Amino acid sequence: MLISKLGEFGLIERFRKQIKNDPSVIKGSGDDCAVLRLDKGSYQLFTCDMIVEGVDFTLKDDPYLIGRKAIAISISDIASCGGIPRYCVVSLAIAKNTTVGFADKIFKGMLDTAGAYKVNIVGGDLSAAKRIVLDVSMLGIVEKKNLALRSRAKIGDIILVTGALGGSISGKHLRFTPRLKEARFLVNNFSVRAMIDISDGLIQDLRHILDQSRVGALLYEEFIPLSEKARGLNDALYSGEDFELLFTLSPKDAKALLKRRPDEFRAIGEIVDKSCGLRLVDKKNRSNRVKFKGYRHF
Amino acid sequence: MLISKLGEFGLIERFRKQIKNDPSVIKGSGDDCAVLRLDKGSYQLFTCDMIVEGVDFTLKDDPYLIGRKAIAISISDIASCGGIPRYCVVSLAIAKNTTVGFADKIFKGMLDTAGAYKVNIVGGDLSAAKRIVLDVSMLGIVEKKNLALRSRAKIGDIILVTGALGGSISGKHLRFTPRLKEARFLVNNFSVRAMIDISDGLIQDLRHILDQSRVGALLYEEFIPLSEKARGLNDALYSGEDFELLFTLSPKDAKALLKRRPDEFRAIGEIVDKSCGLRLVDKKNRSNRVKFKGYRHF
Repeated sequence: MLISKLGEFGLIERFRKQIKNDPSVIKGSGDDCAVLRLDKGSYQLFTCDMIVEGVDFTLKDDPYLIGRKAIAISISDIASCGGIPRYCVVSLAIAKNTTVGFADKIFKGMLDTAGAYKVNIVGGDLSAAKRIVLDVSMLGIVEKKNLALRSRAKIGDIILVTGALGGSISGKHLRFTPRLKEARFLVNNFSVRAMIDISDGLIQDLRHILDQSRVGALLYEEFIPLSEKARGLNDALYSGEDFELLFTLSPKDAKALLKRRPDEFRAIGEIVDKSCGLRLVDKKNRSNRVKFKGYRHF
Repeated sequence: MLISKLGEFGLIERFRKQIKNDPSVIKGSGDDCAVLRLDKGSYQLFTCDMIVEGVDFTLKDDPYLIGRKAIAISISDIASCGGIPRYCVVSLAIAKNTTVGFADKIFKGMLDTAGAYKVNIVGGDLSAAKRIVLDVSMLGIVEKKNLALRSRAKIGDIILVTGALGGSISGKHLRFTPRLKEARFLVNNFSVRAMIDISDGLIQDLRHILDQSRVGALLYEEFIPLSEKARGLNDALYSGEDFELLFTLSPKDAKALLKRRPDEFRAIGEIVDKSCGLRLVDKKNRSNRVKFKGYRHF
């Protein structure tokens, strides 16, 4: 059997269930970051993200933005867990016949982005390959009370997002702003029940929250904020790499948040019993079960 | 200009000198691991290593050993700094038409190796690519007094190695034992002045110690332990991926070590003034300056 038949998530699950960790691992694979024991008040966060030429970018893209993206994806993961990014290491495989100018721009993109978010680039590895592969591993820190996971959504919670969704392929996937400021504002001021960043599409990433929290959800079509570049609702639901935050709050917290920051955050649905599954509600209040699909590598 | 003209180390140096880190970074890129502030008694170690199909292994190799190698390289880096490996994340790019059996074996190799050294695999990222790329980032811990760097060799130190060198390409590069036990024995019982693992060849890795410690060295040909697979002295000097420890001790410590463990460790030379450069001494006590060469990706 080929791995393409098992699918990306099938293969990951097959691996994950064989892993055994010691008790210092608060949360292993399966969230945006691993959560590790650190000290009395804090956890350490640890995440990695690999981007590959021809999949996540092409040689026609600005190399500065390729470097930018590699760093920004990991910052977004740390933000999704409510944390502060601190250190990263960078592995780069690149063709021997690349120009120094091209490599310089990739590195400038990484350096500027790391600098803007106060992340230290502390090491790396360089290798030769026909196609560029860039892997960033990042460490962060989060106060125990601020840790946000995918697994704590509760029935009755309001589902919210930052920004607008869809159409990322037209450029946002290389230029997105990791929602670190927003995530820290949320965890410092509210009790964030569940949080994830939208990397594989709203529906697929919401599914991770629903699966891990063992709940269902209603999404209201009219409330889903479409980006200017979105080619309709389906694009906002299923296309990947928006890198916006998707999170749930108690109704009380949601109300308080939307009062304080009505332009930054949008309520798009609510958490319901698992038996309801995930349903999309249209303007006429008709609801349909949603197919779970989104970006998959295979 | 192409990066192949600048060379691997030229490109790395070009990047490194642009990096600015905050004071919590005790040692950034340029050693086997980054060294980060942790607590009163310990530092955190952070390293990454990428292996690429066609460079570090081929599809004819046993996939179990490919997985094994990916983890073992990072364990060797943590060991070289005197530390204990604790956590890792794994990024894997793999072709869609790979069999599940092949992927299973890669993972089994990673899992068994991590387990044998008590390393927790706490997360990962999966991507599609035509050629396999496997990147492991690892965290470790080291007592402050046990930290071993490349930069502290002193004139008069004895240069030592574990194991035997050369011929790794015939199989050892996939099956080597990371010298964690030996490294911990060394740092716990002696004052290790400088240490590195031999990944790019004895001469090239010794060069890193000499450069960073601002010293020179004499190597005695007859004392360099050749592996059974080595095709002569040059193979032991210049071929990569032995993954043995190369370190320096004071003469007193070296004597005590060789008395206790004469079979595990070998003295191969001594640290001298920088002005001597690196010289190879033959059986007739004639010395020649050594060319600095070894494995480079480009």
